[in-house]
Amino acid sequence: MSVNADLQKERAAATLDSEDFARWWAGGAFQLEERRALERRFYNDPDFAEAVHPSCLSYKERYEQTVARSTRFLAKLRQWQREKQPQLQLDVSTLRDFRLLLSGSLGTGLFQQSFPLRVHFSMFMTTLLGQGTEEQQAQWLNRSWHMDGVLGTYAQTELGHGTFVRGLETRADYDAERQEFILNTPTQSSYKWWPGGLGNTANVAIVLAQLYVRGKHYGLQSFLVRIRDESSHEPLPGVDVGDIGPRLGGNGVNNGFLGLHDVRIPRNQMLMKNAQVLADGTFVQGRPPLLLYGTMVYVRVITLKDVLFGLLQAATIATRYSVVRRQSRIDEDRPEVSVLDHTTQQAKILPQIARGVCYRLVSDWLWRFYEQVLQQLEGGGKGFDTGGRGNSLPELHALSCCLKAVATDEATEGVELLRKSCGGHGFLSSANFDSIHGLTAAAYTYEGEYTVLLLQTARFLVRQYVDSLKRKVLPASVSYLRDTARLAWGKDLTANCVRALEISALEQVRQAWQSQNGHKSKKVSAEMASNLAGRQLTAAAIAHAHAFFTRNALDELASLRRRGDLSQNVSHVVGQLVELFVIDTFLRQAGCVLRWNSGLNGTQLRFVERRYEELLAQLRPNAVALVDGFDFHDRVLGSTLGCHDGRVYERLMEEARRNPVNQEPVNASFHSHLLPMMRGKL
Amino acid sequence: MSVNADLQKERAAATLDSEDFARWWAGGAFQLEERRALERRFYNDPDFAEAVHPSCLSYKERYEQTVARSTRFLAKLRQWQREKQPQLQLDVSTLRDFRLLLSGSLGTGLFQQSFPLRVHFSMFMTTLLGQGTEEQQAQWLNRSWHMDGVLGTYAQTELGHGTFVRGLETRADYDAERQEFILNTPTQSSYKWWPGGLGNTANVAIVLAQLYVRGKHYGLQSFLVRIRDESSHEPLPGVDVGDIGPRLGGNGVNNGFLGLHDVRIPRNQMLMKNAQVLADGTFVQGRPPLLLYGTMVYVRVITLKDVLFGLLQAATIATRYSVVRRQSRIDEDRPEVSVLDHTTQQAKILPQIARGVCYRLVSDWLWRFYEQVLQQLEGGGKGFDTGGRGNSLPELHALSCCLKAVATDEATEGVELLRKSCGGHGFLSSANFDSIHGLTAAAYTYEGEYTVLLLQTARFLVRQYVDSLKRKVLPASVSYLRDTARLAWGKDLTANCVRALEISALEQVRQAWQSQNGHKSKKVSAEMASNLAGRQLTAAAIAHAHAFFTRNALDELASLRRRGDLSQNVSHVVGQLVELFVIDTFLRQAGCVLRWNSGLNGTQLRFVERRYEELLAQLRPNAVALVDGFDFHDRVLGSTLGCHDGRVYERLMEEARRNPVNQEPVNASFHSHLLPMMRGKL
Repeated sequence: MSVNADLQKERAAATLDSEDFARWWAGGAFQLEERRALERRFYNDPDFAEAVHPSCLSYKERYEQTVARSTRFLAKLRQWQREKQPQLQLDVSTLRDFRLLLSGSLGTGLFQQSFPLRVHFSMFMTTLLGQGTEEQQAQWLNRSWHMDGVLGTYAQTELGHGTFVRGLETRADYDAERQEFILNTPTQSSYKWWPGGLGNTANVAIVLAQLYVRGKHYGLQSFLVRIRDESSHEPLPGVDVGDIGPRLGGNGVNNGFLGLHDVRIPRNQMLMKNAQVLADGTFVQGRPPLLLYGTMVYVRVITLKDVLFGLLQAATIATRYSVVRRQSRIDEDRPEVSVLDHTTQQAKILPQIARGVCYRLVSDWLWRFYEQVLQQLEGGGKGFDTGGRGNSLPELHALSCCLKAVATDEATEGVELLRKSCGGHGFLSSANFDSIHGLTAAAYTYEGEYTVLLLQTARFLVRQYVDSLKRKVLPASVSYLRDTARLAWGKDLTANCVRALEISALEQVRQAWQSQNGHKSKKVSAEMASNLAGRQLTAAAIAHAHAFFTRNALDELASLRRRGDLSQNVSHVVGQLVELFVIDTFLRQAGCVLRWNSGLNGTQLRFVERRYEELLAQLRPNAVALVDGFDFHDRVLGSTLGCHDGRVYERLMEEARRNPVNQEPVNASFHSHLLPMMRGKL
Repeated sequence: MSVNADLQKERAAATLDSEDFARWWAGGAFQLEERRALERRFYNDPDFAEAVHPSCLSYKERYEQTVARSTRFLAKLRQWQREKQPQLQLDVSTLRDFRLLLSGSLGTGLFQQSFPLRVHFSMFMTTLLGQGTEEQQAQWLNRSWHMDGVLGTYAQTELGHGTFVRGLETRADYDAERQEFILNTPTQSSYKWWPGGLGNTANVAIVLAQLYVRGKHYGLQSFLVRIRDESSHEPLPGVDVGDIGPRLGGNGVNNGFLGLHDVRIPRNQMLMKNAQVLADGTFVQGRPPLLLYGTMVYVRVITLKDVLFGLLQAATIATRYSVVRRQSRIDEDRPEVSVLDHTTQQAKILPQIARGVCYRLVSDWLWRFYEQVLQQLEGGGKGFDTGGRGNSLPELHALSCCLKAVATDEATEGVELLRKSCGGHGFLSSANFDSIHGLTAAAYTYEGEYTVLLLQTARFLVRQYVDSLKRKVLPASVSYLRDTARLAWGKDLTANCVRALEISALEQVRQAWQSQNGHKSKKVSAEMASNLAGRQLTAAAIAHAHAFFTRNALDELASLRRRGDLSQNVSHVVGQLVELFVIDTFLRQAGCVLRWNSGLNGTQLRFVERRYEELLAQLRPNAVALVDGFDFHDRVLGSTLGCHDGRVYERLMEEARRNPVNQEPVNASFHSHLLPMMRGKL
């Protein structure tokens, strides 16, 4: 089939070499080719074709089709893995690699709204590995890996509690006589709610429950609970299980609810690596689960990568569509222009591309920082030496909180803006923005709710600020809190912007601290004072995230260039993107920036704005080449508007014609209802 | 059933009388009671109960159920109308009242995602009335009103053109010999795309097409085209019709596509009130369709009302849920608090309530202004005297553009924020935020795309600004463009804020004008200069909308109080809401405000912020009473989280259990796929 002429023209005229960019973006030529080969193998397989768009299916049909396709997928993926690596060692990194296949571009291309068995390989097996004893791992791990009678899920959140984990109500009472735990969800609000795959798929759940021994409370522990019979799949006695129903996104996940009523499990099904209950009921606390923090941080780094993936999917769709779509004339005597020629459209799309690329730079750095901290933790207990700055875990934790919160919020907003930039057609499910939006929007809440995470970062920032008053050395990411110099507007525009954002963050932290103190002086508790200062505290964490994102993106660009990782044409365009990101952040935060940098004047702002518009104009000719360089397969985009060949209108019509409602010329409801109504017979 | 205890406590402690508020909000005690009686009649009717939540149905099932329910609804509504008003006169206002029943709270309660026959009574019949000759109306109007063989739709937008109406490609060629028009969609992109009810329901379409007589082009005209056989409902020869498929929202509408291939209609099926084609092909232009503008404005006023309705639905759900939901402790030794006790949660919810109420005040004013202008237009051609300020139509048009654009954008954002404020549960379809969001988000694009509307307002603003330089008298809504005094910070906080917003708007208009001129001086065309200044122009229109919204809300409050329309307790709370809206707008626009009011300092800002937080604390105790006062029936909210009795967890479970996927303990896909996979047989 022919490629849309406008798209072809864009590609021919670009100065950026998409393949060059794609190799860098994929992490190297080998990685790029390997992924492409894998995608070819699966996407060309007729087993994974879709006869009907999932948005036309009923919830139940969708579940059934997802199960059918995902079991075939897992079987074939295993086959591929055996061919590639016959002697596989089952450990943390094997599991991680496998998981990335399920959730990365391959999994997305086949399951736009995910599938029920993903949680088996993520939270379920990870928790087995992290919290199971060697004996427990011997019993469960291999069977789980082969899904041999075990389809797992991880059940923590309840109907009544998510964020406040200590409030979970599910309980496990130890019966020393029979050496069993008795699990109960004693209230309606204690029903487990949300676990992926729990609804109709999983037969074993890791259940988080409050442990009681002889009526004494020993905190939250994890228990392996079989919930469905291995052969018949019938729910076991005392188990009340089902699907929680349709959601904004991720409708392939089969999220479920779970009630437990006097369900008994043997003693060795409490995961006992970190804490044990002996046969007689003695509770033994093992080493404090320092690494639990690590897992939370890990999930947040992954989330950052997930949402930038979604943002750039959306940006790719919007960019290609905006070239293909011609609407309105600029000059009366000339033809209608590509929508992307309207400056207002460029301002909607290009900054999102810049944001996605910069999030990627920062997430790569954060990943390295995470691995560093982890290494030190595993080596030497409480952290490692960072030039006298002490333990890096709090810093890592604080960073991962605010970066995850701000990135998911802005990526979700970005996806929406990109959808809106596609006008009416962006509103169609076949455009796939709704599905992408659903997944990014979910990340706003899961694994740490937005506001809660910001408040955690804010607590760290205020502590660091107090340390700075005591002239202590601060961790690198917050060292700017000690720098009280006012903004000096120099020649380097991005440096000015970043510095202005840092000053804003510093002042916002100071204001939050003052506000807390002000409330405290009015005789409210410290906790209530924090509550009353909530708006200032969250604003401080957001300002910190913006300062860090921009500073770190600039640093990362510099070190990429130092290392010679970027070819010249890629380096040039990535440089423009980083600059656009910094300036865009500065302008979007103008309220904060102007408030805390009273020296800033109109001339400087106009200068920044002019540079912003110059960058739009400079990036415009490479927009298509850039999104081509992300190398999303058409299946990964899953969009009638975003395909590589730009055949937008053809695909919109094809997708509409496929809809089951269009398979018969006259719908049955005409005879049963419309005709009787027209004849006054209703 | 018992009411949630926390909700009960809130209601008991409120100082606002919900019923007092409800009477004002509904427009009077009579209107309130009439609506409630109508709702009781329909909502208690078992014909309108839903066995399965629509989000669980397939697209085709949903269509069929919607047709079944909506035909029953129309029949019963007609019955009710005959009882109430046996001698009904069919005219514009009858039609308008009937339409409000279909689209207002009654229609929403029964059809959360609308239904296919609504467009028959809105665009189809309105266009017949507005553009049909008396003869044509005699032939079509009565039959349409009774749906006697006529189920209409209005087909304007095409696959390739929406915004740029002149670019529509569908054509109608006059064949003088046979006195017929021949209709064609000559290209794929000229297929009609989007009309409501077109997919499988309508049998007649008003089609907008480019008229050609003997090869000469006479612009866009409207044609009545039968597309399906009256008895069999089969598409007629040359007609290619179907549904365009699932969307983010409004999935009950049955939006369709339509291709026409040499479809012939008699000459008298061109709507000829404003322009005629005589038998011999002579084209006669009638009076210029001045009122067309009027219709566009009307639709925008209605849209403003629609989106504030959606925003307040969402706010009601979030408010009640935030009281019922307890999560986290503020003080360690006390129980978990209602989420609404967290300041950060109040800051998410209360400003949305304030916004919705103020949009209502402004939309009421805009409605009166619209009727005034219309009256004058109908009376005296080109407009009416407004104290020497000339024709008010451009002012009305400019206002309706930016207010619709900004209100839909911010309402959509507000609905999302409210959804997010409900954490994970807000993500469930049973919470109904997705459906509300779908409808408000659609309004961002339909009946005038956001950016396009802003640019229309901006053009008006720049023209007025140039007039102000010439010392001309300006229309009232833009008279501030002449006031170049700097901000004088007085005692009245809201007055300060509004004035600061007006100055920002003035300066932003000035900057847009300068930017346009700057580009023009570089020898680009005026049109290209406007394109290049697009960011400044849209910013100017947004700033104008904010200035107008706040100024007008204050004015409306004052005149409500002057007229004594508000009881004392209602007046008090509405006053707080208007103040919160003004301050919230000021703070959200801080970037713009600080940029253009360099005199503003930190002390003043802190003062505004403190007042903002005081208002949150003052409004908090009346939050539940307030949303009760909007008097949304549970059916209208359609939410497991927002019901009047606050039985949140019970309803979440009930809704989950209703899901067809939960009706059998073991899904068939276990035996067909999961078990074989576990046994290595896949």
